[in-house]
Amino acid sequence: LLAKLPPKGKDRLSIYMGDVGPVWLYSDSPLDCVVADPKKGSKLYGLKSYIEYQVTPNTTNRPVNHRYKHFDWLYERLSEKFGPAVPIPALPDKQVTGRFEEEFIKMRMERLQGWMCRMCRHPVVSNSEVFQLFLSYNDEKEWKTGKRKSEKDECVGPLIFSTIDVEAPELDPIDVEQKCEMYSKFTKTMDDGVKDLLNVGNIHWKRCTGPLPKEYQKIGKAFQNLSSVFNTSGYQGETTLTDALTAAGKTYEEIAQIVAEQPKKDLHFLMETNQEYKGLLGSFHDTLAVHKAAIDKVKEGDKMMLAGKINTQDKVTMAKRTSIMAYTLQAEMNHFHSNRIYDYNRVMQCYLEEQIRFYETIASKLKLALGQFTTL
Amino acid sequence: LLAKLPPKGKDRLSIYMGDVGPVWLYSDSPLDCVVADPKKGSKLYGLKSYIEYQVTPNTTNRPVNHRYKHFDWLYERLSEKFGPAVPIPALPDKQVTGRFEEEFIKMRMERLQGWMCRMCRHPVVSNSEVFQLFLSYNDEKEWKTGKRKSEKDECVGPLIFSTIDVEAPELDPIDVEQKCEMYSKFTKTMDDGVKDLLNVGNIHWKRCTGPLPKEYQKIGKAFQNLSSVFNTSGYQGETTLTDALTAAGKTYEEIAQIVAEQPKKDLHFLMETNQEYKGLLGSFHDTLAVHKAAIDKVKEGDKMMLAGKINTQDKVTMAKRTSIMAYTLQAEMNHFHSNRIYDYNRVMQCYLEEQIRFYETIASKLKLALGQFTTL
Repeated sequence: LLAKLPPKGKDRLSIYMGDVGPVWLYSDSPLDCVVADPKKGSKLYGLKSYIEYQVTPNTTNRPVNHRYKHFDWLYERLSEKFGPAVPIPALPDKQVTGRFEEEFIKMRMERLQGWMCRMCRHPVVSNSEVFQLFLSYNDEKEWKTGKRKSEKDECVGPLIFSTIDVEAPELDPIDVEQKCEMYSKFTKTMDDGVKDLLNVGNIHWKRCTGPLPKEYQKIGKAFQNLSSVFNTSGYQGETTLTDALTAAGKTYEEIAQIVAEQPKKDLHFLMETNQEYKGLLGSFHDTLAVHKAAIDKVKEGDKMMLAGKINTQDKVTMAKRTSIMAYTLQAEMNHFHSNRIYDYNRVMQCYLEEQIRFYETIASKLKLALGQFTTL
Repeated sequence: LLAKLPPKGKDRLSIYMGDVGPVWLYSDSPLDCVVADPKKGSKLYGLKSYIEYQVTPNTTNRPVNHRYKHFDWLYERLSEKFGPAVPIPALPDKQVTGRFEEEFIKMRMERLQGWMCRMCRHPVVSNSEVFQLFLSYNDEKEWKTGKRKSEKDECVGPLIFSTIDVEAPELDPIDVEQKCEMYSKFTKTMDDGVKDLLNVGNIHWKRCTGPLPKEYQKIGKAFQNLSSVFNTSGYQGETTLTDALTAAGKTYEEIAQIVAEQPKKDLHFLMETNQEYKGLLGSFHDTLAVHKAAIDKVKEGDKMMLAGKINTQDKVTMAKRTSIMAYTLQAEMNHFHSNRIYDYNRVMQCYLEEQIRFYETIASKLKLALGQFTTL
C-alpha cells in the first residue's frame, strides 16, 4: 500500500465519474478481434505438432498466429499485471487428450474468441502494451522482444493502483468496506445462480440429445410399422391412410433429429455464456481478496501508528491509496455490470429466438403430415 | 358343422357381395349410444354400493341404468352367441381396489363408451335381441324377463352359422384356408404393431409427465433466480433485463405445465384407440381358431366318409357350411378393416392436430417472453 513507483505519463489509467458512478475511460473506437482458421503446425522437423489460430484485430486487420500456449502466456501476463485491479477470467480449459480432434479445436477456438472478445472490451486490458503486442506484432523478432519486455515489467500486481488517476473526492473507508462486501456477496450469489443454470442445462442437454430423440424415433418407427402392416391387409382403398401414416412416422423421425440437433443451436450459447461468466466470477475472488486485505490493513493503521511503525503521512497515503482502490473496484464492477446486462440480454434473445424457431419448425412439419390424412 | 336348428325368419343374418367383397347388411340408420353420468348407488340398506352408468341409445333417447356387471353380463351373452362368427372385444379391465375413485370411474366410463360404440357399429351385434334389450328395456321387469330369455337362448356358438344367408356361390375350400391364414397373419402382425406403439407410448407418457416438465421447471427457476440476483446488483437501468428474465423464467414454468398436461390431450386418445384394438385383435384369436378347426374337419371329411362315419350328403352340407363360415369371416374382416381405417384416420388426425396446437402454443408463449427483452 505504501510502495512507490514513478509511473510514466502514457501508462497512467483514468477513472472518472459517469452516470452509474466511477467508470474507466472508454475508447471511442472499441477494439475487437476475430479468432479463426485453426491450422496444424509443426516444429523440430515434425516431431512436435500443435494447432495455431489466426487472430485478426480490427485495428490493423492483419492476422497474427498464436498457439494456445501463447494465449496462456498472455493470460499470465495480464493476471500478474492487472489481477488485483481487473479480474482476468481463466482461459478455456487445458486439455491433453483429443487435442487434435476437430470438434475440440472448434470448441476451443470459439472459447478463445469469447475470451479475446472480453479482453478487447476491457478499456484497461485492451490498451495495455502486452495486449497490443499480442494482437499486432509485425514479425517474430518484435514478438520475442516484446515478450521479454513484458516479462520484465515491474509495474505489476498491487503497484497498478499507483498508476490510476481518479477525478473524484477521497472515499470514506466505511463506505469502501460496505461496497466491497456488497460486491463480494453479489459475485458469490451470481456464481451460484450461474452454476445452477449450468447444472440444469447439462441435464437438459443430455436428455435432448439422448433419450428424447430416441423416443421420437421409436414413435416414428411404430407409425411406419403400423402402416406396413396395414398395407398387407388386402383391403382396397386404404393407401391414403397408409401413405399418411408413413408420412407421420417419417415426420416423427425428422422431429427426433431436430430435437437432437437443437441444443447446439440454442442451449449451446446459453451454456457458453454462463460458462464464461463462471470463469469471470471465479477470477473476482482473488481481486476482491486483495481489496479486503487492503481494508484490513487500513483498519490496523491506527495501531501501527501508535507502535511507531508508520507515521501520519503514511496513514494519509494509505487512506488515499485505499480510496483509489475502491474507485477501481467500483469502475470494474460497473464495467462488469454493463457487460453482464449486454451479454445476458443478447444470449437470452438468441436462445428464445432459436427456441421459437424450433417449436415452429416442428409445428409446420406436423401440419404437412396432418394434411395427408383424409378429412372426414 | 352338421348340427341343425330351425332358424326363425326374423333372426336370419345376411351377407352380400359389396365392392370390397362379402359384407354384412348394414342398417341405414346406424345405432349409437352415450354412456354418461356415473352415479353411486347402493343395495341392502347401504351395505353394498356400486357405480351405475346412464346409457342412452339414439333410438329411444331414453336413458337406462347399468352397472359394470351388467356390461359384463352383456359381454358374456354376446361372446357366447356370436363369438365364433363375430369377435367380441373384451370389456375394459375389472378392478377391485380404487373402484370408487373419480379418475378410475371416468376412465372406465370412457372405455365402456368406446366398447358400446364399437358394438353399436356392428350390424350383427347391434341388431341382436339381447343388445336391444340392454339398451332399451322399459322397466325392471322387462329387463329381468329378457335376461332370463337370453340366458336360455339355444342359438349360440357355432349354431350361429346356420342362421346366415349368403348371396354368393360356394367357396373353394383351398381359398377358404388361404384367406383364413392371411387373416390370422394380419391380426397377429397388427397385434404386434399395436403393442409396439403402446409400449413406446407408455414410455413417452412417463417422460412427458415426469422428468421433462421437472427440467423445464428447473430451467424456469434458474432464469428467475438469476433475475433476482441481478436485481441486487445496485446497478441502475437493468429492470428491463430482470423483468424480461423473470418473464422468460415464468414462461418455462408454464411450458413445464403444458408439457405435463399434453399427453392427456393427445397421446391419451392414441393410446386408448390402440388399447381398444389390442382387445379387439385378442378376440380374433378364438374366432379364427373356430374357423381353423372347421377347415381341419372338412379335410378329414374324406377319411370319415371312407370309415362310414358320414355320408355323401353330410359332406356336401359340411362344404356348404364351411363356405358360409368363410363368407362370415370375410364379412367380419371387411367390417374390421373399414372400421380400422376410419378409427386410425381419425385418431391420427386428432393426435397431430393437438400436437400442432401444443408446439404452436409454446412458440407463441416464447414470443411474448422474447418481446420483453430490449432489441439491441
